[in-house]
Amino acid sequence: MPSQPSKTLETFENPHSQRDYTIRIKVPEFTCLCPKTGQPDFATIHIEYIADKLCVELKSLKMYMWSFRDEGAFHEKVTNDILGDLVAVTSPRFMRITAEFYVRGGIYTTVVAEHRAKGWKPEIPVVLA
Amino acid sequence: MPSQPSKTLETFENPHSQRDYTIRIKVPEFTCLCPKTGQPDFATIHIEYIADKLCVELKSLKMYMWSFRDEGAFHEKVTNDILGDLVAVTSPRFMRITAEFYVRGGIYTTVVAEHRAKGWKPEIPVVLA
Amino acid sequence: MPSQPSKTLETFENPHSQRDYTIRIKVPEFTCLCPKTGQPDFATIHIEYIADKLCVELKSLKMYMWSFRDEGAFHEKVTNDILGDLVAVTSPRFMRITAEFYVRGGIYTTVVAEHRAKGWKPEIPVVLA
Amino acid sequence: MPSQPSKTLETFENPHSQRDYTIRIKVPEFTCLCPKTGQPDFATIHIEYIADKLCVELKSLKMYMWSFRDEGAFHEKVTNDILGDLVAVTSPRFMRITAEFYVRGGIYTTVVAEHRAKGWKPEIPVVLA
Amino acid sequence: MPSQPSKTLETFENPHSQRDYTIRIKVPEFTCLCPKTGQPDFATIHIEYIADKLCVELKSLKMYMWSFRDEGAFHEKVTNDILGDLVAVTSPRFMRITAEFYVRGGIYTTVVAEHRAKGWKPEIPVVLA
Amino acid sequence: MPSQPSKTLETFENPHSQRDYTIRIKVPEFTCLCPKTGQPDFATIHIEYIADKLCVELKSLKMYMWSFRDEGAFHEKVTNDILGDLVAVTSPRFMRITAEFYVRGGIYTTVVAEHRAKGWKPEIPVVLA
Amino acid sequence: MPSQPSKTLETFENPHSQRDYTIRIKVPEFTCLCPKTGQPDFATIHIEYIADKLCVELKSLKMYMWSFRDEGAFHEKVTNDILGDLVAVTSPRFMRITAEFYVRGGIYTTVVAEHRAKGWKPEIPVVLA
Amino acid sequence: MPSQPSKTLETFENPHSQRDYTIRIKVPEFTCLCPKTGQPDFATIHIEYIADKLCVELKSLKMYMWSFRDEGAFHEKVTNDILGDLVAVTSPRFMRITAEFYVRGGIYTTVVAEHRAKGWKPEIPVVLA
Amino acid sequence: MPSQPSKTLETFENPHSQRDYTIRIKVPEFTCLCPKTGQPDFATIHIEYIADKLCVELKSLKMYMWSFRDEGAFHEKVTNDILGDLVAVTSPRFMRITAEFYVRGGIYTTVVAEHRAKGWKPEIPVVLA
Amino acid sequence: MPSQPSKTLETFENPHSQRDYTIRIKVPEFTCLCPKTGQPDFATIHIEYIADKLCVELKSLKMYMWSFRDEGAFHEKVTNDILGDLVAVTSPRFMRITAEFYVRGGIYTTVVAEHRAKGWKPEIPVVLA
Repeated sequence: MPSQPSKTLETFENPHSQRDYTIRIKVPEFTCLCPKTGQPDFATIHIEYIADKLCVELKSLKMYMWSFRDEGAFHEKVTNDILGDLVAVTSPRFMRITAEFYVRGGIYTTVVAEHRAKGWKPEIPVVLA
Repeated sequence: MPSQPSKTLETFENPHSQRDYTIRIKVPEFTCLCPKTGQPDFATIHIEYIADKLCVELKSLKMYMWSFRDEGAFHEKVTNDILGDLVAVTSPRFMRITAEFYVRGGIYTTVVAEHRAKGWKPEIPVVLA
Repeated sequence: MPSQPSKTLETFENPHSQRDYTIRIKVPEFTCLCPKTGQPDFATIHIEYIADKLCVELKSLKMYMWSFRDEGAFHEKVTNDILGDLVAVTSPRFMRITAEFYVRGGIYTTVVAEHRAKGWKPEIPVVLA
Repeated sequence: MPSQPSKTLETFENPHSQRDYTIRIKVPEFTCLCPKTGQPDFATIHIEYIADKLCVELKSLKMYMWSFRDEGAFHEKVTNDILGDLVAVTSPRFMRITAEFYVRGGIYTTVVAEHRAKGWKPEIPVVLA
Repeated sequence: MPSQPSKTLETFENPHSQRDYTIRIKVPEFTCLCPKTGQPDFATIHIEYIADKLCVELKSLKMYMWSFRDEGAFHEKVTNDILGDLVAVTSPRFMRITAEFYVRGGIYTTVVAEHRAKGWKPEIPVVLA
Repeated sequence: MPSQPSKTLETFENPHSQRDYTIRIKVPEFTCLCPKTGQPDFATIHIEYIADKLCVELKSLKMYMWSFRDEGAFHEKVTNDILGDLVAVTSPRFMRITAEFYVRGGIYTTVVAEHRAKGWKPEIPVVLA
Repeated sequence: MPSQPSKTLETFENPHSQRDYTIRIKVPEFTCLCPKTGQPDFATIHIEYIADKLCVELKSLKMYMWSFRDEGAFHEKVTNDILGDLVAVTSPRFMRITAEFYVRGGIYTTVVAEHRAKGWKPEIPVVLA
Repeated sequence: MPSQPSKTLETFENPHSQRDYTIRIKVPEFTCLCPKTGQPDFATIHIEYIADKLCVELKSLKMYMWSFRDEGAFHEKVTNDILGDLVAVTSPRFMRITAEFYVRGGIYTTVVAEHRAKGWKPEIPVVLA
Repeated sequence: MPSQPSKTLETFENPHSQRDYTIRIKVPEFTCLCPKTGQPDFATIHIEYIADKLCVELKSLKMYMWSFRDEGAFHEKVTNDILGDLVAVTSPRFMRITAEFYVRGGIYTTVVAEHRAKGWKPEIPVVLA
Repeated sequence: MPSQPSKTLETFENPHSQRDYTIRIKVPEFTCLCPKTGQPDFATIHIEYIADKLCVELKSLKMYMWSFRDEGAFHEKVTNDILGDLVAVTSPRFMRITAEFYVRGGIYTTVVAEHRAKGWKPEIPVVLA
């Protein structure tokens, strides 16, 4: 069965859930449509998260990103919506989405949104010399 | 109707105002006039903000930046004035303007000014490993 | 007397006209208007030439570049026009103009035009190991 | 009337057709579909040409590039096809298309195709020191 | 005796154990197999640690990294497992493993995991001007 | 059926064989074994060619590169052997293989080998200004 | 009257003294003499400050930097002296001088010195995601 | 008298000892011998310090670095030893040594060690916007 | 005797005069005065040459470059003059001087001049794949 | 038996001597002594060659480079001498040595020398689009 765009995100069990550790994912090939002009927009999407019980599965993530190809999406809204969708299926301790949009009208826009689980506190970071 | 330079900044409703998130905008094509010599100055303007109820609309922002093309503007003053204008129309929780001016007399100048809404406090940043 | 935009290019005598040598000039602060939309365009202009009797004077070149600030100018035409103006006043043995325009509609355009004096032939270049 | 994807390329008269000069165009936002898997492919398309009577109009070029968004396209074929389409409408003295595709299966592919008008010969290039 | 892949990590005595200092190691030549497809995966592994009594010996580290060449390994698990193995033999005060995997399906993944010894507290870092 | 390493290279018909055009392929994930020490070697392989009747199919190329994973291979020999294998199945007009090996003993080695079909002559390159 | 090297630094009134904001100045063309050998030294000087009532005027700053051209100056001393001179005329809330000297004897030296006004406290910085 | 390698580090009086300020020194031309194989090792040494009464004199520092040319030196030990030697002669308020070693066996190693004078506390750093 | 600026260039015998080989020298620390304004100018000077009987001695070259520190010098003239001085003392088979001047009035200038000995012809360069 | 510096270069049979192909070798860790001051010099040595019957063996090359560690060597002479030694043992069709020396007295020097076998002619290079 060929791959298809899909809003369904799949997960797998976090293999080291006893520890807070960071997973960083970069998706340089995101495209959607401008809701005003209908013309294509392009972006690089960064996901950084600390998983709790579940990690996001990469192949379904690719299909999920593909699902925006024919949708109109405002910069600010789509960034927060991607965060919402990923939080809904993985319930992470922490997640940050950074969406770097390509230039439009000579202007570059980047949107960054975060989720923190209730009651979760980050460890104090160790800054090595 | 063709586009025109304009001091009028338009806004739209923040689609996720329940959350502090960051919007970064880079405008590499800013030009004004040197108030002393009348000669053109050039700069890249960076805007970073956490919106409250309103976000700045990008097309009007482009016209706003254009409106400085024939105005004399000291580096320090114009940076603070842009901040003042953007704060006046969007009332953000936080906003920072960085203006990187091109070399003049062998000297490079950058000016950075910030606004913080009264009573607003930034979340403690999560520094991922 | 303050500086002013001007189409008048000044020259000075080539101090070593007995020899073919190269002068390269980069002007990163060129701006004109889009003839279709009236909106500002920006470019970096490169001039490379082998002078004959005359070299172009840099301060007048700066005022000349300034003179396009309020003019509508198509990419292809303005590059060739700048070449024509500079050739007219300096009669160089060789001149090349490269105009790198900033992105418009997600598309980057660069135009390169050359003039060769009649009867002039370039020396065979020495390619050092 | 809103913009739409279109295979129709528009042209304008070359303002300096008496001279061979170079026009370089970079389109970083090209996307099509993989004919085997149906999944999106992305590329940066470079166009370099020496116009004869006609230049390609940039807005129609943007719509033309957009028209591949829902088409299946093999790397080698689409590069040559774009060359064919652009040559058909502009009849340039010389044209080169370079398509840099994003990584697939850990492999990066770039395809470069050229057209030379019959009887046209390039000037011997001037290589400045 | 020729070198061979090996899970055995060797150590040597920390020559300055009275002081917290940082050792950074970069291994750009890590390869394992994808547990789903059996195809090769590649990564750069970074190790940063503050040794207690023991430091990891580099030649055995090279053989250890080699030992993954024919093993299936999920990104998240293998990063935590390498951390576990290195902590088991060196009992460091602090250790951080960063695994930067090469692109798969157009997506880049990096995993970062840390170990802190019980009772150990990092010194407050000196941030020099 | 899962993918497997294989020496079998597959081809497809060149869609524009009437024209000399360039196909560039970069494979950053090549690994083999050092024939002297048995330890892993790593390289980036570049393929540049002008196809005649046949192009190399990318998925089979990936499996072909994988097939060296457990083979001993001298730098100079493996580069020429890859060239020989690719020429044997595609009979290109021109092909160049560049193998950039990672540092060994503090020394970096790159090997470049070319094949030219009998009777084939390259067009004189157009060097644009 | 032509410009001349001068130790006199001029100031202008801070146009937004009600706010702590940053002014960054880079002077890449600083030269002085080595007090030991008498040979020229070169450096890039960076000034970062938060003005109180007065800002430093750029043209006089250029003449001030010029005034070191014929003076002997040890790296550590001249950096602190420049800080002292600039603080004396502008009484800033905060000022930092960074002097990056060119290589001497195969060794690169950078010196960084700061002044903080009595009673002034920096705002807690906002670190945006 | 010609220069010679020497373990003797010379100092000069700190010209601004009333103030904590930073001196950064980069020595890209460090070489010693591997204690196991006897083969040459290479590194770049960084020194960052806040002087108390004494600064290190650069010419003697160069001779000091030269003195390791014929000595066997483990990465971790030599970094701490250099720190020890420099602290012994300058008694700084703070000093950090970073030794970046060239690749060995495909592995890059960097060691960072710090000294803080008893009772010295760093000022809270000013992080400018 | 301390070093001093000097127009005297010293030479030494070319140790391999039977062969055409290339010597490249980069002097990033050149400064002179603008003949119009008297203000300092800065440049990086590149020398590339094929020696005949004599090579230029580097210490005297440094003193020679120093000798321009207090001289007024037009960009085009000083480049040709340096070429003339170096040719006069070394009589090279080929020499090229490239002077990259720092920005003035927002404009960057580079001047390149060459000398070829009478009767000398460059070997046809070997362009390796 | 431990490795030792040695002037003996070893060779192996060229596995594809029927074809002209390029071998590039970079040695970033070369050090010798300045014949005037006795102080260490550092360089990166590049070797590019087209082998005839013999290729240079890399481990002996490493020992050969090591053998200069305690020798005085003028830049121009040592480059030509290395070329001479390598030509003597491998009799290549073509060889080029490039020696990039580190900065001395603020001046960077690079020396490039070539050998061409008698009667050997390079193929006309294929310059791909």
